[in-house]
Amino acid sequence: MKIITVSREFGSGGRELGKRLADNLGFDYYDSEIITLLAKNKGMDENYVEKALTAGSLRGIPLHFGRSFSSGVAQQQSHTGLLIEQKRVIESIAAQGRDFVIVGRNADMILSEYCPFNIFVCADMESKLGRCQERSDEGEKYSKREMEKKIRAIDKSRAHTRELMGGPQWGSRTAYHLTVNTSGCSIKALTPAVAAYFCAWYEGRGI
Amino acid sequence: MKIITVSREFGSGGRELGKRLADNLGFDYYDSEIITLLAKNKGMDENYVEKALTAGSLRGIPLHFGRSFSSGVAQQQSHTGLLIEQKRVIESIAAQGRDFVIVGRNADMILSEYCPFNIFVCADMESKLGRCQERSDEGEKYSKREMEKKIRAIDKSRAHTRELMGGPQWGSRTAYHLTVNTSGCSIKALTPAVAAYFCAWYEGRGI
Repeated sequence: MKIITVSREFGSGGRELGKRLADNLGFDYYDSEIITLLAKNKGMDENYVEKALTAGSLRGIPLHFGRSFSSGVAQQQSHTGLLIEQKRVIESIAAQGRDFVIVGRNADMILSEYCPFNIFVCADMESKLGRCQERSDEGEKYSKREMEKKIRAIDKSRAHTRELMGGPQWGSRTAYHLTVNTSGCSIKALTPAVAAYFCAWYEGRGI
Repeated sequence: MKIITVSREFGSGGRELGKRLADNLGFDYYDSEIITLLAKNKGMDENYVEKALTAGSLRGIPLHFGRSFSSGVAQQQSHTGLLIEQKRVIESIAAQGRDFVIVGRNADMILSEYCPFNIFVCADMESKLGRCQERSDEGEKYSKREMEKKIRAIDKSRAHTRELMGGPQWGSRTAYHLTVNTSGCSIKALTPAVAAYFCAWYEGRGI
């Protein structure tokens, strides 16, 4: 079984790269599919699960999503419980034995026993702002400054969750096999090259 | 003109990757060739120039190479002078207009106006120790601990020289287009994949 994990800075195009890689290689693809599975297992609403997972690690960033959490402590417990359930879902996907690409969720750590190929995707702030503005909904307009703040907060939360799980530092170069900087470059154009790199790495391991 | 710069952690196999990339792509290759040109321009001994460049940035690491430097201040001045001359040599190579790969020497910063493709090569300490032991001379035996200390000192000196030149942080992910982790993998196997990535990047810029 071959597994590719994609970790990424918010707005770097990591999700697009992961999806295109899966298409290119004929692998299964998991991203929001994990939330769907998790919500189903727990009998919870998908939107709720997604927001709870995000909010739980966004320290100091107020997020409102109903009255489900009555206190910070309860929120933290729910967040941890959801992280554990998410880990189980990811492990159950791997147990199926099919090749797949998975985006985010510290899957590189969770699946380390399977020796996945781990990619980190980054970009300079200008590129990330451009990408975020392109994909933002009409009803969700941020100023450049607000968007930059949002990007930094989400990346901080990702680093924080990783720290909570005891893994190597989020984004540090030796924690991944390949770190791809997408600044000023088409993800579509880069995809076959990353796929080729993965294949070369897979063949060249332990030589 | 196409330029690829290779920055690297000591022992990561960056030099081998650079040489193989140049062979693969049919590009010129520059590494110690720069020292030869620099020494020729200044009418100095090659070994002297190489050691002076290394020693000047190795703070706190005693290195002995003759009586040419009478004081720390003189040494620092000579080091800076040699860095400036090295910059001129690198600029003169680029001015020839031929495609080339260049290893080290902060060439990514020096040649930034040519928009080179910048690679950073890293590896975990175990892989670096293994590679250093493989290539060390019979007369140059270090214990594992001494070798690890040497690796850290050389990388520190590289980061220091970069800081002196005012560039983005040495080894930081967004300072390079691609960060390659060679841990446990054959450089020979990875080379065509990195070459393919460079070609895809070159075609995909600005799309």
